[in-house]
Amino acid sequence: MDADGPLSNLRVVLISPRNPLNIGAAARAMFNFGFSKLRLVNPYEVAFREARSAIGARDILQSAEEFPSVAQAVADCALVVGTTSLGHRELEHTLHRLEKGAPLIRQQLPAGPVALLFGSEKFGLGNEDMAHCHWLLRIATADHEHSMNLGQAVAVCLYELSRGALDPPAAPPRTPERAKAADTEQITRLLLDALEKSGYVNPVTAASTETKVRRLVRRLDLSAHDAPVVLGMLRQILWKLAAK
Amino acid sequence: MDADGPLSNLRVVLISPRNPLNIGAAARAMFNFGFSKLRLVNPYEVAFREARSAIGARDILQSAEEFPSVAQAVADCALVVGTTSLGHRELEHTLHRLEKGAPLIRQQLPAGPVALLFGSEKFGLGNEDMAHCHWLLRIATADHEHSMNLGQAVAVCLYELSRGALDPPAAPPRTPERAKAADTEQITRLLLDALEKSGYVNPVTAASTETKVRRLVRRLDLSAHDAPVVLGMLRQILWKLAAK
Repeated sequence: MDADGPLSNLRVVLISPRNPLNIGAAARAMFNFGFSKLRLVNPYEVAFREARSAIGARDILQSAEEFPSVAQAVADCALVVGTTSLGHRELEHTLHRLEKGAPLIRQQLPAGPVALLFGSEKFGLGNEDMAHCHWLLRIATADHEHSMNLGQAVAVCLYELSRGALDPPAAPPRTPERAKAADTEQITRLLLDALEKSGYVNPVTAASTETKVRRLVRRLDLSAHDAPVVLGMLRQILWKLAAK
Repeated sequence: MDADGPLSNLRVVLISPRNPLNIGAAARAMFNFGFSKLRLVNPYEVAFREARSAIGARDILQSAEEFPSVAQAVADCALVVGTTSLGHRELEHTLHRLEKGAPLIRQQLPAGPVALLFGSEKFGLGNEDMAHCHWLLRIATADHEHSMNLGQAVAVCLYELSRGALDPPAAPPRTPERAKAADTEQITRLLLDALEKSGYVNPVTAASTETKVRRLVRRLDLSAHDAPVVLGMLRQILWKLAAK
């Protein structure tokens, strides 16, 4: 990951955070999703650098900057976005759902610093904080009465912002190679043999059973890796059945 | 929100969680995103119901179920998905990135229970836990060395699962109902029994064989229609092997 890539232009701004664990959790999420610039406005606990839950995020906490006001924390940013998981009290702001707003932020990041504001655990963003925002980002939740946990809200926003950016989108889902038809058919044969030797196959309906078993084995859709394993199992079971 | 909607079919399964705050955080994220069924396998702190961070999630914690094993926690689920934010140690499982895997889970939810497994804070999902999974879900992170915080990982997964849920897809593709985990596990048991009776299982490596067979059976991804057929075959073969 390029430390100087567009993601490094995001400033995650926590306003009056009260709980060091949440500060640590925010830093950890930043680390997880490739962001690095943390800013704190008037934090309640100055001892945030000790935050324990920030595994792997020590550098982010060490280099976090403190500001006495929102205005100063966002001064160098060309775009300032506030977050809320609640219904908006303010009708004055444009409100984007996270999945719609994230691309707008990504679009801006290569051009320069963007601030993403998170309010305090208890009150969220106040009207005065929102006044610094160009627009608001809302995480769509099932309920508008209860806010999200701060650390989780940060994680969800940063996940969406980095969504599809961290791995090359071309990377196809890793699916195992499928078994060749010849192997699938051999498994069918051995299974039929075992079923016959076990008395599962009724001679009158044997043809129909064979078709059903053949279809069943195809539906298993065995991988090239699993097919020889299944063949080995069947051979061993057959050997035992024949040894009767 | 409809409490009996498809989202209520998701079982969030925390395996051996050690920190009550994380259990609370998971419950809170479930509440935020409209999920309700929490299951705990062998939790470290039985006092999890007191978890403080679970604002608004009291009902979820009150109705959370405890299980002694993964097998029992996922028994009624037709699809079992494990989560990891690390690089995969196991090449045997199909691995989907969260944004690709979430639609697969959403597709299955209307048909019945789906389990989403989260490993312990310290170790993540173990190989034995993964053996119960049909496939794995990976949250794409910037770094493969450091895992995500448990509460944040749950929040990100549930956010993605509920993402855009307010806009239902035009016509959900119809997929055959999958076998319940209890049936899949019974197939595993009978197959192991047959392999043992056939001399396939080396007593020295029996535990490893069991894990391999368990994974293999999950990869077969049997339908609810095929599972009883396979069970019948195995019972007949076992009967014959025992009749020796």
